[in-house]
Amino acid sequence: MQNVSTYKMKAAEVTDPFWQKYMEIVREEVIPYQWKALNDDVPDASPSHAIENFRIAAGEASGEFYGMVFQDSDVAKWLEAVAYSLENHPDPSLEETADEVIDLLEKAQGEDGYLNTYYTIKEPEKRWTNLRDNHELYCAGHLMEAAVAYYHATGKRKFLDIMSKYADYIDSVFGREGDKIPGYPGHQEIELALIRLYQATGKDKYLKLSQFFIEERGKTPHYFDIEKEARGDTSRFFWDNSYGYHQAHLPVTEQQSAVGHAVRAVYMYSAMADLAAITGSSELTDACKTLWKNVVQKQMYITAGIGSMEFGEAFSSDYDLPNDASYTETCASIGLVFWAKRMLGVEADAQYADVMERALYNGTISGMDLDGKRFFYVNPLEVTPEMSRRKDKRHIKPVRQKWFGCACCPPNLARLISSLGHYIYSQKNDIVYVHLYIGSKQQVDVQGQKVDIVQETNYPWDGEINLTVNPEQEEVFTLALRLPGWCNDASLTVNGEEIRQDAVLEKGYFYLRREWKRGDHVHLKLAMPIERIQAHPNVRENVGKIALQRGPLVYCVEEVDNGANLHNLFLPKNAKLSTSFDPDLLGGITVIHGEAERRDEASWGEDLYSNTHASTIPAPIKAIPYYSWCNREPGEMLVWMNETI
Amino acid sequence: MQNVSTYKMKAAEVTDPFWQKYMEIVREEVIPYQWKALNDDVPDASPSHAIENFRIAAGEASGEFYGMVFQDSDVAKWLEAVAYSLENHPDPSLEETADEVIDLLEKAQGEDGYLNTYYTIKEPEKRWTNLRDNHELYCAGHLMEAAVAYYHATGKRKFLDIMSKYADYIDSVFGREGDKIPGYPGHQEIELALIRLYQATGKDKYLKLSQFFIEERGKTPHYFDIEKEARGDTSRFFWDNSYGYHQAHLPVTEQQSAVGHAVRAVYMYSAMADLAAITGSSELTDACKTLWKNVVQKQMYITAGIGSMEFGEAFSSDYDLPNDASYTETCASIGLVFWAKRMLGVEADAQYADVMERALYNGTISGMDLDGKRFFYVNPLEVTPEMSRRKDKRHIKPVRQKWFGCACCPPNLARLISSLGHYIYSQKNDIVYVHLYIGSKQQVDVQGQKVDIVQETNYPWDGEINLTVNPEQEEVFTLALRLPGWCNDASLTVNGEEIRQDAVLEKGYFYLRREWKRGDHVHLKLAMPIERIQAHPNVRENVGKIALQRGPLVYCVEEVDNGANLHNLFLPKNAKLSTSFDPDLLGGITVIHGEAERRDEASWGEDLYSNTHASTIPAPIKAIPYYSWCNREPGEMLVWMNETI
Repeated sequence: MQNVSTYKMKAAEVTDPFWQKYMEIVREEVIPYQWKALNDDVPDASPSHAIENFRIAAGEASGEFYGMVFQDSDVAKWLEAVAYSLENHPDPSLEETADEVIDLLEKAQGEDGYLNTYYTIKEPEKRWTNLRDNHELYCAGHLMEAAVAYYHATGKRKFLDIMSKYADYIDSVFGREGDKIPGYPGHQEIELALIRLYQATGKDKYLKLSQFFIEERGKTPHYFDIEKEARGDTSRFFWDNSYGYHQAHLPVTEQQSAVGHAVRAVYMYSAMADLAAITGSSELTDACKTLWKNVVQKQMYITAGIGSMEFGEAFSSDYDLPNDASYTETCASIGLVFWAKRMLGVEADAQYADVMERALYNGTISGMDLDGKRFFYVNPLEVTPEMSRRKDKRHIKPVRQKWFGCACCPPNLARLISSLGHYIYSQKNDIVYVHLYIGSKQQVDVQGQKVDIVQETNYPWDGEINLTVNPEQEEVFTLALRLPGWCNDASLTVNGEEIRQDAVLEKGYFYLRREWKRGDHVHLKLAMPIERIQAHPNVRENVGKIALQRGPLVYCVEEVDNGANLHNLFLPKNAKLSTSFDPDLLGGITVIHGEAERRDEASWGEDLYSNTHASTIPAPIKAIPYYSWCNREPGEMLVWMNETI
Repeated sequence: MQNVSTYKMKAAEVTDPFWQKYMEIVREEVIPYQWKALNDDVPDASPSHAIENFRIAAGEASGEFYGMVFQDSDVAKWLEAVAYSLENHPDPSLEETADEVIDLLEKAQGEDGYLNTYYTIKEPEKRWTNLRDNHELYCAGHLMEAAVAYYHATGKRKFLDIMSKYADYIDSVFGREGDKIPGYPGHQEIELALIRLYQATGKDKYLKLSQFFIEERGKTPHYFDIEKEARGDTSRFFWDNSYGYHQAHLPVTEQQSAVGHAVRAVYMYSAMADLAAITGSSELTDACKTLWKNVVQKQMYITAGIGSMEFGEAFSSDYDLPNDASYTETCASIGLVFWAKRMLGVEADAQYADVMERALYNGTISGMDLDGKRFFYVNPLEVTPEMSRRKDKRHIKPVRQKWFGCACCPPNLARLISSLGHYIYSQKNDIVYVHLYIGSKQQVDVQGQKVDIVQETNYPWDGEINLTVNPEQEEVFTLALRLPGWCNDASLTVNGEEIRQDAVLEKGYFYLRREWKRGDHVHLKLAMPIERIQAHPNVRENVGKIALQRGPLVYCVEEVDNGANLHNLFLPKNAKLSTSFDPDLLGGITVIHGEAERRDEASWGEDLYSNTHASTIPAPIKAIPYYSWCNREPGEMLVWMNETI
């Protein structure tokens, strides 16, 4: 088997002003806040009890389990975020705290390796009896991911060993042979985690266990039915009694379109992509590509939000993308980043990096305010605050919330942002890929030689990228630079010499093969005009509307800049649009100004319906990057604007 | 007190081709079908048990109560529809059946007058303990309405006496004095019914009891809280624990906008309007006008659908009128007709008749298919069949259903349609009003003289109306003809002589005062061009869209005529529109043809988002009256079309 671990490269050092700010916020706000929350040390938040649960399971405290059945995963995500943070920014005190938590996990672990506080404390005899609902394998997966990250960050094996022991135990319980359990989790996660554990430890059995979970899924008779019957449970499953919710309605290689809970789906697709890359399975590769195509061509918002339905936090049907009723969970866009990264392991095609970038600059970081204190679970594309009173739009919060009872999104964002250094570059043999334009330093090992790559850019505000390549000695290898899908006009030089682009471009990457020497300078310039984007005509909700995009950033208009009743703004086809960088606004953003029209409510009168036409008045508009919305006075927001009048 | 009973006039004989068809369907399809349903004689429908409940309560059968707590009201609505039908179309066998049901009611009635099968059979000791939820007074009200109608239709007093006895008993139970119950119903209906009972019997105490229920409503402490505590019920009320659902959040005269369950609301407003007209209360008159203004200027669909929210079958907030997620229950539009008719009793202003007409020709009869066999509970303005799979749009059925477990709408439509003869004319002193243009013969009594009025028209297909006035002898009185709000160009002659309209027009009525003699001929011609209607700019969902209307009819486009993806149709501002009458289509309708454009899905390619613009192709469109949609192949439908491209 070919090991194409996307994690074998050390994390790049992120020097990018845009992202450093986020990483700092995660380090200084989110991780400490989350630690307090895990320890019930936030006065006005609902208690987490997550650390206390481990103390009780470890015999260090007495009491009852409290929280969600997946409460352990909050600790796991925190540890994983801490690991990445330490990788970027050593912090002995934080590391000590993490080590103490790891000691606690060790004590909470059973002799046999089992580690789950809900079952250990509350229903020890009921282990593995409800894989569908109870998140045991999900929690195990998150702990495995954390353990691998912590091992890479600190070199310490303890946590990795704990989780290997747990994985060994799980491997002894699940499988097709003998009286092993032929089941799989209701919430996918362990599948991708086992692959990381395999990559970190080299133990094939973890890879095989992941394959087992993936291959077993959706076979008939349904394991969820079997375990349900064994439990004596005769109730209907809430999601129309369908296993589509868990993507267990069909064997994974037969699934043609994304259905069900969006986070579960993309976590599973991530594992499938890893397996496809590692095993070279053409069935899995085809399945991944089919599902990818379905998601990005039919079920993804322009912000890279996915899951257009609150019911089941789920995908809906093709082209059903309501802007004001979407679910578009922060975690789902994060999962889309995970999947995109892994698709790049299957195939170096810039379309995957395009979506990864779209998610990173739009639908993921929109989940957090600019100071890391408040979070969106749901990231709508259109908000009218009073509409959140409608039951069918109640999930659309007009302002970010402090913390969630089900605290999945904030720690997920924390681990994504602090691991950003793992997403910028990748390597396959002697090709070094640059997927994202983020100021950074990356050391790679090409043919046994160390090569330092230094990237400097003011992305996403302008499209000028400077790369310096510093091999220890002159060396022939390929540097592959992504040409973003949004860019129609790029210039590329190496040491000042223009490159004929069509000769080196393949699937969205410029392949620069040459003998590189210290100080070689690559200059890529991506034109970043303001683009007026239309949606596919099958998207009912966006007909006659456009969204503004510049570079990777999707823009929106907010009431605070443009007044109320944003739906009455119309951007004529020939409207003048211009940009300016405002260093004092929202942490420094490029603003789009435009000459729009608005239907004049004041001139209309009282009739609800009339055969007269509303008059229009000129209305200058100001659009800001979507990610930065809801950081000033609360109010309306919209991404898709009427185009003409 | 001034008695302005809108029912003192006998029903007009309806000779109108458009409405006769509906009345015939109700007589020949709906009433017989409903009778079978009430007797559990429809093989594939869920059992009603409604007649059997009365048999059990009467001691003629044994068994348990079955059905909704308001099951009795199905029998009441059937009896009421039968009464109106007999009024139009005597049918001795049907009358005999009705008489037998009335005999049964008599036997089911308690010694004290109480008549409710749920409580009599199931919880006799719990009478009046849950006015909020259990519909006791609601059922009583429907039976009273039926009794009054039956009395007027047949002259037989038995049913009226039964219900008077029940009303006397209710009057002895409810009130402010002594240990009477200071409560009021959760579902309004008895308030308007008591007024009809008062008008039929002349007994003031029924009027006063109605007043009591209306005036007591919404006072603090809330009666619903008092009875809830007495029941030991500590649960939260499902509608956000708000009494707005029952319009009991404030005293009725303090209510400024329509909230809560739409049917309950308009039934209550109907009673308020009756009381305002009868008592002359300026507070009630003001409250009615305020609420009317709120509903018709801010919360009513162009089809006269009301209730834009599935949650609680309720009003939402001002201008929140989503086309594809509305509730717009058939019964709510019917209730709006009831209310509008009664507002005409408060004040002769054509705006009330305009809404009555809008509801009659659009949002009420859309609830039934053209052969009276299938029914909509919910009347959306935009349907994409596969969207009904979304949980938040699941109430939107893409096709009419056979019958409902909660069978309120079909019998409500039956009683509305068969009582149409009561809505066309009204009289105040020596003014005879013509509110609706429906072919009919009406006999009125003016100053002790009989006057026959004969109306002939091909409405709603053309706007030519001929009225012949035949007094027994020459007599001075006023004939007041409504100028519909949709009409901008009318011509009016009496015996061929042009009338100067501005001299006789007041609040939408032409007042023709003269000495009328036999054979006088009034000719009114209402121009009926195709109108392109816009919604108020505050209606987010309709921005940039228009609806086609001609005369009183709102039009829609259906997939069967226009292909799928109706959202991609754009009607340019200068689009040519024409009409033709197709006698073979949908029972004979005027079709609107237009030259539209459509965004061409086929030319777009696979991208979900692109900076290219979808090309457009010419697309002839064919629009049909909204009421007639969903009578051919199922598919998409929409009322509000994009206006330009």
